[in-house]
Formats: sequence, C-alpha cells, structure tokens
Amino acid sequence: MSSRTEIASLGEFGLIDHLTRNNETHHASTVLSIGDDAAVLDHFGKQIVVTTDLLIEGVHFDMVYTPLNHLGYKSVIVNLSDIYAMNATPAQITLSIGVSNRFSVEALEAFYEGVYAACEKYNVDLVGGDTTTSNKGFIISVTAIGEVAPDRFVKRDGAKKGDLVCVSGDLGAAYLGLLLMEREKKIFMESPSVQPDLENQDYILRRLLKPEARKDIISFFEANDIFPTSMMDISDGLSSEILHICKQSNVGCVLHEDKIPVDEASRQFAFKLDLDPTACALSGGEDYELLFTIKQEDYEKIVLNEQISVIGYITEPAEGSHIITRSGNKHALTAQGWNAFG
Amino acid sequence: MSSRTEIASLGEFGLIDHLTRNNETHHASTVLSIGDDAAVLDHFGKQIVVTTDLLIEGVHFDMVYTPLNHLGYKSVIVNLSDIYAMNATPAQITLSIGVSNRFSVEALEAFYEGVYAACEKYNVDLVGGDTTTSNKGFIISVTAIGEVAPDRFVKRDGAKKGDLVCVSGDLGAAYLGLLLMEREKKIFMESPSVQPDLENQDYILRRLLKPEARKDIISFFEANDIFPTSMMDISDGLSSEILHICKQSNVGCVLHEDKIPVDEASRQFAFKLDLDPTACALSGGEDYELLFTIKQEDYEKIVLNEQISVIGYITEPAEGSHIITRSGNKHALTAQGWNAFG
Repeated sequence: MSSRTEIASLGEFGLIDHLTRNNETHHASTVLSIGDDAAVLDHFGKQIVVTTDLLIEGVHFDMVYTPLNHLGYKSVIVNLSDIYAMNATPAQITLSIGVSNRFSVEALEAFYEGVYAACEKYNVDLVGGDTTTSNKGFIISVTAIGEVAPDRFVKRDGAKKGDLVCVSGDLGAAYLGLLLMEREKKIFMESPSVQPDLENQDYILRRLLKPEARKDIISFFEANDIFPTSMMDISDGLSSEILHICKQSNVGCVLHEDKIPVDEASRQFAFKLDLDPTACALSGGEDYELLFTIKQEDYEKIVLNEQISVIGYITEPAEGSHIITRSGNKHALTAQGWNAFG
Repeated sequence: MSSRTEIASLGEFGLIDHLTRNNETHHASTVLSIGDDAAVLDHFGKQIVVTTDLLIEGVHFDMVYTPLNHLGYKSVIVNLSDIYAMNATPAQITLSIGVSNRFSVEALEAFYEGVYAACEKYNVDLVGGDTTTSNKGFIISVTAIGEVAPDRFVKRDGAKKGDLVCVSGDLGAAYLGLLLMEREKKIFMESPSVQPDLENQDYILRRLLKPEARKDIISFFEANDIFPTSMMDISDGLSSEILHICKQSNVGCVLHEDKIPVDEASRQFAFKLDLDPTACALSGGEDYELLFTIKQEDYEKIVLNEQISVIGYITEPAEGSHIITRSGNKHALTAQGWNAFG
C-alpha cells in the first residue's frame, strides 16, 4: 500500500505550497505566478491580472441565511477584491456554477441578479462560464481578469523596515454578522416558530452578506500618486494577512490595538457576545478590506482619508510580529490573532 | 408563493441562454462574450482568449475508473481544446479544486502530476487557483487564457454556403471507452473478484481517460495560411456541435456518413456492443477533436493532411441539416445524432 498523508496535516496554505512546490513557469508572458492575490500576465507587452475563487455550499456559505442575490453579488466581489489588492482594475469575469435540481430557474435568476448588480457597480463584464449539474449543493467558481499599467502591480513581498501598515474601512464586522446568523439559525432549528431577532444589526449583516470591494482606495492611490510597497485583501483576518506580508517581505511588524478600526456597531455586538472586538478584527475573516504598507514619506498623502487607518509599522525580521494592546502589553501575533483565540 | 420552473425544463443550453439573456457588456475591451468556446478580450489593443470549465465528481467523471493523474491531465486538456477552437494559443491556466478529506495528499499529488504533464506538453503555465474543502466529492475548476493575433480568432458564426465541413482525428472512441468502463464497473460492483476484461482496448480507453487537444491542427492552419470560417471543439458529439455552427451561422449542412472518421478499434467495439459506429461518432461526446468549416478554395491546402477529414458542406439555411447514410438515405440531424438514438 502506498502511504497516506491527511490533508489536514498540511493545512490549506501548506497544501497549496506542497502541491505547487515544483511548479515552474516557462512562458515569457507569466510575470507573477502562484503565491499572491492574483497572477500577472504579460500579453504582448501589456499586463493583465487574473484571480479565481471556488465557493462551495456548506463550506463557504449557508443557504439557510444567505439570500441568493447577495450570494451572487458576493461571489463577484471576493474576486474583484483580489484584483484591487494587486493595484489593478477589474474588467471581466467568468462564472461557472454547479447546481442540483433542488434549485429552480427562479432561484438561479435571483443569483444572477446579484452577479449582474456587482458587474454593473464595478464596471466589469461577465464574458463566459460553464453551467452544470451538481449532485449535491451549489458550487460557484469565478475568475476575474483585470488590467494594470506595466509594472504597477503591487505584491505582498515589498514591505520594508519603517513602512507604515495601513488598512481600509473597519474590521471584524463580517465575522460578527456570521456569529449573529449562526445564533439565529440555531434558534430557528430548535424552535422554528420563534422570529429571528436581528436587533437592527444592519451593518454587520450587510458586511457579511453583501460586502464591497475597495475600488475607491485604488482610485485614491492613483489620484494621489501613492504606490504601496505591499498589499493584499483581508479575507482571512488581519492577523493572518499581516503575517503573510511579513513572511513574504521578510520583515517584522508592530501593530497598535487602539489604532485598529472597528465600527461601533461591531464593538457593541462583540460586547454583547462577551467577545473582544480586537480579537474579532484580528481573526474574523471576510471583511474584504485592503491591508497595505506605504513609505513613511507618503503619510501626508493618506492622513486626510478617513477610510484609511495607520495601524502600525514594519520592523526588522528579527523583531517578529507583535501587537501592543491598549493596556501596553506586547503579544506575538499568530495566524489566529493572539491569545484571545488561543 | 413565487413560481417554480424546473431547470430540466430548459436544458443546459437553454438555462445558460435564459440566465444570460440580458447580459450586456460595457467594456470596450470585451470583444466577444458568452456564446462561443471562449471569450475574446482586447487588453491594450491586443487580444486574449479566456475559457473555463467546471468538472464535478459523479457528473463529469467517476473516480471508480478514473486514475487521478489522467483526471488532472484531462481537466487541463478540455480547457486548452476550447482555446484552440478559437484559433488561439493557450499560455496560462488557473486551477481551483474542492476536495473532501476522503482524498489524501498523495492522491492530490497524483492529480497535480497529470496537470503538470499537460502544462508541460502544451507549454502552458499554471499561474493560480484556489484549494478548498468540499463536503462531498472532488470539484475541479480550470480557467485557460490564450493569445491570438488581433482579429484572427475564429467564432462559430462564420460558416457560409458552399464551405466544406471538416473534422480532425476520429470520432466516437471516447464514448465507446466510456461504455467499456461502465460495463466493467457494473461487473465489478456485482462480482468484485472478477478481473476487468479490457480486451486490449487501449485506444478507446486512452481517448476517454487521457484525451489530447488539437494543437497540431492550429499550427497547421498557421503554417499553411488557412483561416477557417467557423470552428468549435467536439465535446458533446458531432451532431450537437454542427447544429450549433449551423444555428449561429444561419446556414444548413449536408454530412456524408461514409466520410465521418471512425477508428477501426472503435468500429469493432461498437459492433461488439451492437451499436452503430456512426451513431457513436454523432452523439458520443468528449472526443475533443476540432470541427471547422473552410472555403472551398482552401481544399487543396488541407487535402494531404491525414488528420483532417472533409465530411460534408454548408448549404442554405432553408435546406436544414442532414446526413446522407451509406445506403443513400437522407436523415435530419438532431442534437442526439439521428434516429439511431431516437
């Protein structure tokens, strides 16, 4: 018998690294391959950016509380977010879906309504795809293609000592929205007659169910001649993402808890659940905000943009990656945040 | 209650048409959108071609008789075939997979071995993707990107009256390979101790499990200055595909049964199963050969290529789409072939 290694023993990132460790690229047109938010391709001397995401019912979304039009919208957004995270502008998407006969044509129409709404808002074209049967559940695969001026794409590996660490918007809300929906689902499953109590939590629910991609930040960079030294989008939580940037840039960092932007609605709901709002920001995923580093000399250019927060700075690699709490304590960052999530 | 329309009432092509009927494209860079083998995008004045396919275990492949390395190979090939069918050259792919913990790392390594083998053979780079958990089965999504000289892509809608209808290679073998494997699976399920009897059917099994894409035909076109008037790849069967070309080109056609290329191994195995080899060629899918039309004046350019067969010609639309059998009878073509498959 051949040996058997469990996938869980490698983890998701470990698995990708493992399977692609011998991947060599040969095409002169492949500028940047696996390992960033998107690939960069040079076709006839001009650069395009490509990214793809696979979303599976029961793994990435729960049909019990996910309206289909929002699901269609979000399926597009998560890919556009990866294109913006390369400092590029999305132009086209392809969409493949696998559906069981549990879904009606009307249900798929609702899904496509969301897809088209996102395409319209972000000015991208749906140009192709595949529609097939699935024997179980709903499967969605989106590939997004964008454009970037030659060599103006931003990777994860360019952060340098002294650079400022910045994030757009606020963090943790999508995760708190998820906790709210999971709570209500549990109540519904146990007592179907009880009406859901969504407590006017519009903001955190919207952040979970209908996120936006930060097109505005990329436009702001261009208008103000800002070229981030590194950038990625926050899909898995701030802590996990800043560690990716530190690892790929071979640097360390210091973040300040009191600078991490958390919306007041998120903060209040976290307290209600007896959770630390900072832990939610560090470890909760799906915010689709941008995490980026800039040179100190660019500080004046961003300081007046209320959608951008400076949350720390880049250090020597030997100093590691830490967060300084409100109480002044220093904790090492882990992919799961810090000790609040163990 | 809102109304419910069953997906089955529209069929796969009907469903795509229905869901994308209001799809408008806005980007100047979207040259060709949904409705062909691939989309054509103009980025900075140069054209790239994009296609995507979603493959789902239990729908598109059966793990009982599909070796994982062949599955990886085929997942790439089916997409490259769509790029070639646009008269373009593939350059990059992205690959997303969803896997349940039933699969070991070694199993995924075997799958990737096949992916890399196809990339190597066809000189394409794997540049990105997504790896995720699936709660059931194996899900594969591949997107391929190719290049084409400006406005040298070939669509399905350019066939004109008098054009010659051509196919590459031979047809029906993959379908017969599938019948063989299904037969052996059934025997195995009923009597696990019986050894499979593959009857030295190497050819039809290879056509099913490890198909190739017709890169050579596209190179031949270029070397001989041939520009097909329409083209697509044969994934659903010759009959279904020629009807697509006729519909999109607004023409009719006459095919000659005795000109349709069927390999001797396929013919013998069809007879063994009491099937008509022509019916297998018309209706069996997954051959990944190219179906194309050329102007009559290009006949001299292709006649010496043994990998190309002229199987009929294009007519006025009013004449419909027919096949003339060996016995001289004329039958209307249907997506399922003709009356052999009813």
